[in-house]
Amino acid sequence: MESLYNYISKQMNLSQEAKEFIASISKVSFFEKDTVLLNQGESVKKTYFVIDGCVRSFLEHENGKEHTLQFAIKDWWISDFMGLFNHEVSSLTIECITDTTLVEFNLSDIEKIYTLFPEFEAFQRKNLERHINNLQKRILNLLHLTANERYSNFLKQFPDVEKYAHNYHIASYLGITQQSLSRIRSEKKL
Amino acid sequence: MESLYNYISKQMNLSQEAKEFIASISKVSFFEKDTVLLNQGESVKKTYFVIDGCVRSFLEHENGKEHTLQFAIKDWWISDFMGLFNHEVSSLTIECITDTTLVEFNLSDIEKIYTLFPEFEAFQRKNLERHINNLQKRILNLLHLTANERYSNFLKQFPDVEKYAHNYHIASYLGITQQSLSRIRSEKKL
Repeated sequence: MESLYNYISKQMNLSQEAKEFIASISKVSFFEKDTVLLNQGESVKKTYFVIDGCVRSFLEHENGKEHTLQFAIKDWWISDFMGLFNHEVSSLTIECITDTTLVEFNLSDIEKIYTLFPEFEAFQRKNLERHINNLQKRILNLLHLTANERYSNFLKQFPDVEKYAHNYHIASYLGITQQSLSRIRSEKKL
Repeated sequence: MESLYNYISKQMNLSQEAKEFIASISKVSFFEKDTVLLNQGESVKKTYFVIDGCVRSFLEHENGKEHTLQFAIKDWWISDFMGLFNHEVSSLTIECITDTTLVEFNLSDIEKIYTLFPEFEAFQRKNLERHINNLQKRILNLLHLTANERYSNFLKQFPDVEKYAHNYHIASYLGITQQSLSRIRSEKKL
């Protein structure tokens, strides 16, 4: 939990009461590599904070092709935001691509934090703004960068993910074919 | 201003005091078609709420090619979120693509709303969540939909934009070539 408290304390003053409340509504869990946390089509009940490891969310198309929406590493949150926001079942699958330690929260409990500790509102506003900033950058990157440039950006943002993600995880995040990614990787090694 | 008050009142209880404060820090302005509200490279000082018309934000690449990040129509907000969040100059240009009526806010004043009227925090959290939901959908659409499907989705989301946007505005929003868009449009008319 210290990892989560540190993350919060970097951005706001975290009181002892708030710390205790957070501990009371959350659970630290270890998941083995390849554990599926949420299946496409299930209802979305939890959100996760990554302490260690890497989690991936993806959409599986009818034709079996996967499209990676997010990689979450240390200090990132992950859930199916779209399913949650639209009160729909999940459109995404969420899986651990390494052995992973997470803090789990029930979504119904998260809302209580804002009521009991209103100082979390501004904290969360900044987090959501940061997320929007990242998503907008990603859209612009998808629109205007070459496959090569997207891969270079990816390595900067996720320097370690390459070590444990499959080729198709990364290719489907970048919106390029596995063949293109293999070609780019072998050119980089030259 | 009624248009803005109605938009807020749909989501929260808007007090007379809050209404008066909003009126005191904002200005309703009319802009002719093709007015540039912000140029790439300028500092980001304002955010806009659209009462009537259509505004577009785009990134201009060194090679002169434009990439449309957003169309904002009635009841949407637009600014350069990335420039703002990163305290950098604008990476985007924002222009009116029709005659447009906007409510203008100085970004420094917006922050005061949360201090004076903390009930706006939850309202803004929901707005940011809605925005994240839209951006995530757009990323998945860019990753997995065909050009034809992207265009059909666009028409559902922005039924009127097609009437006044240029071909390259829409093509550069969808991440497809103008030639592809022209082909799709002519096939739809058959």
